[in-house]
Amino acid sequence: MKRLVTSLISVSALALNATAFANESVMKGSQDPKQWVIQAGTYDNQRYSKLDQINETNVGKMAPAWSFSTGVLRGHEGSPLVVGDIMYVHTPFPNIVYALDLNDEGKIIWKYEPKQDANVVPVMCCDTVNRGLAYANGKIFLHQADTTVVALDAKTGKVTWSVVNGDPKKGETNTATVLPVKDKLLVGISGGEFGVQCHITAYDIESGKKVWRAYSTGPDDQILFDPEKTTSLGKPVGKDSSLKTWQGDQWKTGGGCTWGWYSYDPNLNLVYYGSGNPSTWNPKQRPGDNKWSMTLFARDPDTGVAKWVYQMTPHDEWDYDGVNEVPLVDQKIDGKDRKLLVHFDRNGFGYTLDRTNGELLVAEKYDPAVNWASKVDMDRSSPTYGRPLVVAKYSTEHNGEDENSQGICPAALGSKDEQPAAFSPKTGLFYVPTNHVCMDYEPFRVSYTPGQPYVGATLAMYPAPGGANMGNFIAWDATKGKIVWSDPEQFSVWSGALATAGDIVFYGTLEGYLKAVDAKTGKLLYKYKTPSGIIGNVMTYQHKGKQYVAVLSGVGGWAGIGLAAGLADPHAGLGAVGGYAALSNYTALGGTLTVFALPD
Amino acid sequence: MKRLVTSLISVSALALNATAFANESVMKGSQDPKQWVIQAGTYDNQRYSKLDQINETNVGKMAPAWSFSTGVLRGHEGSPLVVGDIMYVHTPFPNIVYALDLNDEGKIIWKYEPKQDANVVPVMCCDTVNRGLAYANGKIFLHQADTTVVALDAKTGKVTWSVVNGDPKKGETNTATVLPVKDKLLVGISGGEFGVQCHITAYDIESGKKVWRAYSTGPDDQILFDPEKTTSLGKPVGKDSSLKTWQGDQWKTGGGCTWGWYSYDPNLNLVYYGSGNPSTWNPKQRPGDNKWSMTLFARDPDTGVAKWVYQMTPHDEWDYDGVNEVPLVDQKIDGKDRKLLVHFDRNGFGYTLDRTNGELLVAEKYDPAVNWASKVDMDRSSPTYGRPLVVAKYSTEHNGEDENSQGICPAALGSKDEQPAAFSPKTGLFYVPTNHVCMDYEPFRVSYTPGQPYVGATLAMYPAPGGANMGNFIAWDATKGKIVWSDPEQFSVWSGALATAGDIVFYGTLEGYLKAVDAKTGKLLYKYKTPSGIIGNVMTYQHKGKQYVAVLSGVGGWAGIGLAAGLADPHAGLGAVGGYAALSNYTALGGTLTVFALPD
Ligand SMILES: O=C(O)c1cc(C(=O)O)c2c(n1)C(=O)C(=O)c1cc(C(=O)O)[nH]c1-2
Ligand SMILES: O=C(O)c1cc(C(=O)O)c2c(n1)C(=O)C(=O)c1cc(C(=O)O)[nH]c1-2
Repeated sequence: MKRLVTSLISVSALALNATAFANESVMKGSQDPKQWVIQAGTYDNQRYSKLDQINETNVGKMAPAWSFSTGVLRGHEGSPLVVGDIMYVHTPFPNIVYALDLNDEGKIIWKYEPKQDANVVPVMCCDTVNRGLAYANGKIFLHQADTTVVALDAKTGKVTWSVVNGDPKKGETNTATVLPVKDKLLVGISGGEFGVQCHITAYDIESGKKVWRAYSTGPDDQILFDPEKTTSLGKPVGKDSSLKTWQGDQWKTGGGCTWGWYSYDPNLNLVYYGSGNPSTWNPKQRPGDNKWSMTLFARDPDTGVAKWVYQMTPHDEWDYDGVNEVPLVDQKIDGKDRKLLVHFDRNGFGYTLDRTNGELLVAEKYDPAVNWASKVDMDRSSPTYGRPLVVAKYSTEHNGEDENSQGICPAALGSKDEQPAAFSPKTGLFYVPTNHVCMDYEPFRVSYTPGQPYVGATLAMYPAPGGANMGNFIAWDATKGKIVWSDPEQFSVWSGALATAGDIVFYGTLEGYLKAVDAKTGKLLYKYKTPSGIIGNVMTYQHKGKQYVAVLSGVGGWAGIGLAAGLADPHAGLGAVGGYAALSNYTALGGTLTVFALPD
Repeated sequence: MKRLVTSLISVSALALNATAFANESVMKGSQDPKQWVIQAGTYDNQRYSKLDQINETNVGKMAPAWSFSTGVLRGHEGSPLVVGDIMYVHTPFPNIVYALDLNDEGKIIWKYEPKQDANVVPVMCCDTVNRGLAYANGKIFLHQADTTVVALDAKTGKVTWSVVNGDPKKGETNTATVLPVKDKLLVGISGGEFGVQCHITAYDIESGKKVWRAYSTGPDDQILFDPEKTTSLGKPVGKDSSLKTWQGDQWKTGGGCTWGWYSYDPNLNLVYYGSGNPSTWNPKQRPGDNKWSMTLFARDPDTGVAKWVYQMTPHDEWDYDGVNEVPLVDQKIDGKDRKLLVHFDRNGFGYTLDRTNGELLVAEKYDPAVNWASKVDMDRSSPTYGRPLVVAKYSTEHNGEDENSQGICPAALGSKDEQPAAFSPKTGLFYVPTNHVCMDYEPFRVSYTPGQPYVGATLAMYPAPGGANMGNFIAWDATKGKIVWSDPEQFSVWSGALATAGDIVFYGTLEGYLKAVDAKTGKLLYKYKTPSGIIGNVMTYQHKGKQYVAVLSGVGGWAGIGLAAGLADPHAGLGAVGGYAALSNYTALGGTLTVFALPD
């Protein structure tokens, strides 16, 4: 069966509702540039659209065409979907879903408002965000904050099935989107700040029945590793590859959460994603590499078994979660066509790997400020091959508990956080929203209580030295590991980018601007101040022959937690409140969708 | 001193900060079409701007230029102010004030967030709205929900003075704007649904010291009437004109609240406003004319003494508060120049009076659906001169307690509620946002408890017969009492209108559209769907040579109370929840300022 899905062309001819081929609905929808059926646009997470009606010559004339308030304040991540003539808009907690009629100027066709216990809110580490819906097989999938996964009839909003994926009382929550792959729905979980043993789970897309679950830490039968066949940097991982890297039972509260983005290669039949920080944030308390936290995984979606893994940050000392998106691209390296996977890690390195086998090809800093490691060891014969070479001065492990390690770059929220990059096959470049922020980090001893924060570090954040800008929007050549151009931004760019065939790239800023820049040069071509700071991701669609660009504004997320949760102590929000305090001079809370178009 | 202010030209030459001439600051600001210093634009409440860069030929090209989320949900009434290069934006409860820098794309210069006891919210009858700020003498004036009046330094947001005008524990709250007149600040009060004895109060504009207070009901020394000199329809009212129209002490809980709009004629030195419903809503419980509820007042701002009064709805049986705005215009009637005052009352009659003496000139229905009265008796020799001739079938007094009087038009929220009309001196027409809604009304016996609702009626609301539209936007000739054109709207038009020298009229709709129509024909020239339903008032200003149009969206108010307060029972919100239930198919909560301009 798997092998049926070998070419995009054959796929698009298949029936939409064939249960066994759930992904055909996604593949068909995502091949149609008029629609936007999953959060990344396409399985490869390129966030690229073939639409070119709006292009570098006319984008300066673009203007808002209509707008829609979601009725919810706090951080709005993710983007709307467009399936046929309907737009689906989601909100942060309480995770309302609206179906809007594009034929009737956004009239509300249906609204789904889950009843969720508000006690989940304090268990969410970094605002009440949700990274959005997915569409497949006539259903809209929502993964609520309280970890209830719901399949809604896309036409009526009626619940088809629902299943509970975790328990907020144990610190388990959700902010991530879900990915429909074949006949399964893949879902992650959050809780790295609460000592959760995190996992990715596959549910049957038609019934919601659990099919498999793969933890990030634990024994091989829990992490779904084949000691002989699952490889890391080309070698089998061997037995108990995770257990061996933890002291005692610590893997049971080990984190490695899966709250980021998922990509899928239908030809290789592999799903890609990264795992988050090991718990606690105090490295002294958990000796070892803490595998497989901070790791990229390639898994078989049918069985969940891992084909290969690569741990970016062994024994994390800085909260550099490895969950950022994993776009898949086919590019030449040294003249050879390669099936690549690119990953802008929180730790500040941009990685390029061979996605067929996990071979490490490039690992370079995508922000020159990065200082915690001098480089990633690329010497295949070295005992530290593939590992970052940590600078002692910035090692919170080395400096020890109750010692304030200062001037570490990047800050815990990374050179990039969850905000996804875009890729244009026309330029061959990645467009990366980045943070240009450093930190002081003081680990302290904590004990584990289920459902209570399990952090153990005090942080302060501030702009990287040499300037006041806390972000850059950059173009990156992943085959060389080089910045091509870089546009400074006052605040971190916490919005997902969109590249289009119109040779332009869109992104949002924390002050609230939607910006369009020239894909080749980074030159600013258009900006508009939306109602609130943008941490949503830009998407595009076409309706009745006209191209639209849409983005959710609504400041929040980790960077905007001071505004979102009304916090003022600079150390609150794990240091983000102080770091982004100036944001309150530019914007206030509010959840609004703004849809742009060229004038008639 | 009063006499100094006799011509606009001499005034504008005076110093801005001269304490004794507070209104000069307003007059100077309101004569400058680039600014918008009080809610109505000008003292005469015409809501007219001389700006004409945006006009009937190019308004179709208008588009949003920037936007700003207020961070507050629920109903956003009123409009921003523009003073120099600063825009002042207010919100509903908790009544935040933002000063935005127009030179720096809306950057927040300062933010004032009062600390108010949230217990005021349930004491507000019709959503947590606030009709906005006023500027005078370098100060921004805010009248909070809890009745605290605050003077803020316009440059820094620091509190200059503050004074408490009422007590929410007794049902006293505020939603109205304030009016700076000469060296005083005039403020009203709400509480007609809580049996408050309402009043207008003058505070010293520099110190906040109370100067005078005039009640709507009570003895002459409380209502500030001169029995010999205060007239009604040309005759002195005589002694105890209010007391005589109430049974016993009922005037003490008599309502007549002052939550509407205030206008001022500097030449006549008279302030105009209307009073609200008598309490309770059950007419059987309060025999008599219930003076001076439902009354237009002309008062001397220096002393508070009433020059003349006119009661539109004696012994109200329908909650037809008389608080709607009182625009002042100079027009010819029967070939003679007259100083007029026009008033579109909740009761469905459009009144034109001579504002010098209160002579009644025109009283005609401005919605053909109005049926509770056949007409206003215009026969000067009749004993019922000036009174509405009530139709027995629609008289809730006549039908009695616990009887459901059906099909009464308009509904309690009137043929028009607080949403202010605009006037264009170029066309000589009024542009009136109206409600086209009828009701069933069943009075029942209630007893008075301070701070508790004192309503005594159950209502249902629905569109007027013969169509589904719940509103019209009309042009009205106040000299003849005739509708010139009428644009039907699906919902009541709950937004204040703006007329400009560009021969266009702007208004917002409850679904969220900002619309521009041709002032002469009513033809739709532009519409844009803002994030949320509009109950704010449209304003315009000019900055760096460019004209902007701005409006707050944020659905709520009485019509939107179902959405704003999350109510579902159709009888809730005094019948508005059922009447406007379909609104939830079009819009959701959210407070956003959208600023429009022509493309560069
Ligand atoms: O370890 C976790 O479980 C976890 C969860 C989340 C989340 O669910 O949003 C974030 C993080 N960690 C995190 O480290 C982080 O930087 C972060 C940023 C954001 C955001 O939405 O802005 N969420 C999260
Ligand atoms: O009698 C009062 O004190 C009082 C107060 C208010 C208010 O303060 O908003 C309203 C009313 N009455 C009222 O009758 C009414 O129709 C109304 C509509 C609205 C609104 O803002 O949409 N407020 C009020």
